[in-house]
Amino acid sequence: MITLEVSLGERAYPIFIGQGLLAQTNLLRPFVKGRRALIVTNEVVAPLYLGAVREALGDVQCDTLILPDGEHTKTLQTLSLIYDKLLAERHERSTTLVALGGGVIGDITGFAAATYQRGVNFIQVPTTLLSQVDSSVGGKTGVNHPLGKNMIGAFYQPQCVIADTQVLQSLPFRELKAGLAEVIKYGLIDNLPFFEWLEANVDGLVAGEQTLLAEAVKVSCQDKARIVAADEKEGGVRALLNLGHTFGHAIENAMGYGTWLHGEAVAAGMVMAADLSVRLGWISSAEARRAKALLQRAGLPVVPPAEISVADYMRLMAFDKKVVGGKIRFILMRGLGQAVIESGIDAALLEQTLEAKEQLCEI
Amino acid sequence: MITLEVSLGERAYPIFIGQGLLAQTNLLRPFVKGRRALIVTNEVVAPLYLGAVREALGDVQCDTLILPDGEHTKTLQTLSLIYDKLLAERHERSTTLVALGGGVIGDITGFAAATYQRGVNFIQVPTTLLSQVDSSVGGKTGVNHPLGKNMIGAFYQPQCVIADTQVLQSLPFRELKAGLAEVIKYGLIDNLPFFEWLEANVDGLVAGEQTLLAEAVKVSCQDKARIVAADEKEGGVRALLNLGHTFGHAIENAMGYGTWLHGEAVAAGMVMAADLSVRLGWISSAEARRAKALLQRAGLPVVPPAEISVADYMRLMAFDKKVVGGKIRFILMRGLGQAVIESGIDAALLEQTLEAKEQLCEI
Repeated sequence: MITLEVSLGERAYPIFIGQGLLAQTNLLRPFVKGRRALIVTNEVVAPLYLGAVREALGDVQCDTLILPDGEHTKTLQTLSLIYDKLLAERHERSTTLVALGGGVIGDITGFAAATYQRGVNFIQVPTTLLSQVDSSVGGKTGVNHPLGKNMIGAFYQPQCVIADTQVLQSLPFRELKAGLAEVIKYGLIDNLPFFEWLEANVDGLVAGEQTLLAEAVKVSCQDKARIVAADEKEGGVRALLNLGHTFGHAIENAMGYGTWLHGEAVAAGMVMAADLSVRLGWISSAEARRAKALLQRAGLPVVPPAEISVADYMRLMAFDKKVVGGKIRFILMRGLGQAVIESGIDAALLEQTLEAKEQLCEI
Repeated sequence: MITLEVSLGERAYPIFIGQGLLAQTNLLRPFVKGRRALIVTNEVVAPLYLGAVREALGDVQCDTLILPDGEHTKTLQTLSLIYDKLLAERHERSTTLVALGGGVIGDITGFAAATYQRGVNFIQVPTTLLSQVDSSVGGKTGVNHPLGKNMIGAFYQPQCVIADTQVLQSLPFRELKAGLAEVIKYGLIDNLPFFEWLEANVDGLVAGEQTLLAEAVKVSCQDKARIVAADEKEGGVRALLNLGHTFGHAIENAMGYGTWLHGEAVAAGMVMAADLSVRLGWISSAEARRAKALLQRAGLPVVPPAEISVADYMRLMAFDKKVVGGKIRFILMRGLGQAVIESGIDAALLEQTLEAKEQLCEI
């Protein structure tokens, strides 16, 4: 087992990464401070791991809420179901919420914890690669609004994160690949050696090799923990973690949440960011194609949907949280492993990228 | 103008108290950091003060959302209306929410600010005595749930509070008196000299004398700011501010939110707390009657509704946020100006208090 620390002063917490952690006694239990907990999970994960988590919680009095699966459930309405359950079962401020599932479960449960009785403890037990390497770490919680993704939420840190890489064996292949998009993102942001390690090992990762996956989760969490510790509330450097996300969120929204998986949209979004960086003269066409090639080898889409028009992108990106002073803020590349935050991008070049589709990075 | 500071480190903020502050130029404007603001108010307050606030905001680009009036509107549904407005008008993270109204507007707008795009700035412009002396200070924000008051919310501090005592002239008499309940509460908690000052001046306060009201708001805010600074998240001493609230919340809920005003329910609740303190042998019957007499002179109800049974109280109080480990936590009195936090109260004595009604404190 590897233990990482997210260094946030009094809000610091550990991330445990390893194989078979859910079956480990005395790992989860000490992080529940009161006598009660509510496990929030979904109908796909519950049959697989709910039993193990209940067992790991030992003498804690557990209630369970099983939600439907999918990004379309990440709404205020679903959030209300968690409040209803907590109040119907009379959970007090001393309760702990346990988020057992992927990013949707983690985000919505974390937001419920941030706001139930003005804040109760919560624990993240991410069961997808994407949530293990990204959404479970860093305290971003929230729900979507019809007019934008993650528009309602809070920064709220868990008591701990337990990333059992063994559960990735049950992950649908498409979701494993979607998770690799966020893994590759860390290489592109500021970790060229990791990017090169991924180039060497992507086939094994796609094949689900445990040791490789554990290493990928570890490095991703290390990178994320470092960036979050430097900028918890995203006043600056944390925005780098949104590489590919401005374009990606627009794709997710345009196609209807859940049609494209988040990681898939981010993959195409990163190719678009690479393309725009080439057009700006910041990276070479060869570098952009190298990024695109790795994503493609990970089985990820590198061409955005044909049906989204430039006007659609502009409208949807204008709603993004990354808009500052009316200007869309992009995360772009000054090199592989050298992401930068830029706004005020030349509109003509942006339009070229939005129209490039199959020709992205083939400049 | 009096300026108080709520000392919360990087979350510190000023409270401005005085007559005619809304008309003062350059008071409100510097606290809006971005170029845009959304003023949230209600249909009663808007015709009176919306114009003045818009003017005070000068060159800030203002949108307005006018909500219905009343405690029954303090729900997740109303909260959604604020998100909808912010997104429809494309407000960014740099926006500022301005809460112009009483406690309901302040609580719900503050919670919207805490959660829109994971947190934007907000300013409190309380227009009722109750919100000036209590709810606008201290960062408690939130909404009610059908199963309990303020069950969903966040601790989130404003940029500043502007308490213009002149607006109290337009306050309905019933609401002025309801506000005095929270004023008297500060005397009972830990400020005997203020309690005695209130005994000497209650008639003038009820008559709406400006100088007296300004003094009452000042001392109340001072007391509250001191207690909040000592315990922002209510881990300990801040719970004293809930004097009368465990009983009061049960009354509000049993009668239907808005039937009894919050301050009215708290007044009756404080009489019940005094009564229970006498039964426990902690204060004399004379002291309890002195507290009751002051509340009565302020025109406040000192007898809880006849129709609430002991069973009703027990059921409703068990839902209160002040429940810890299944035990209801009461704020009681060890003297006038000496409130204490106690749980594990003798059930038989509690029952006597719940049944006493007109006989409260007449022991």
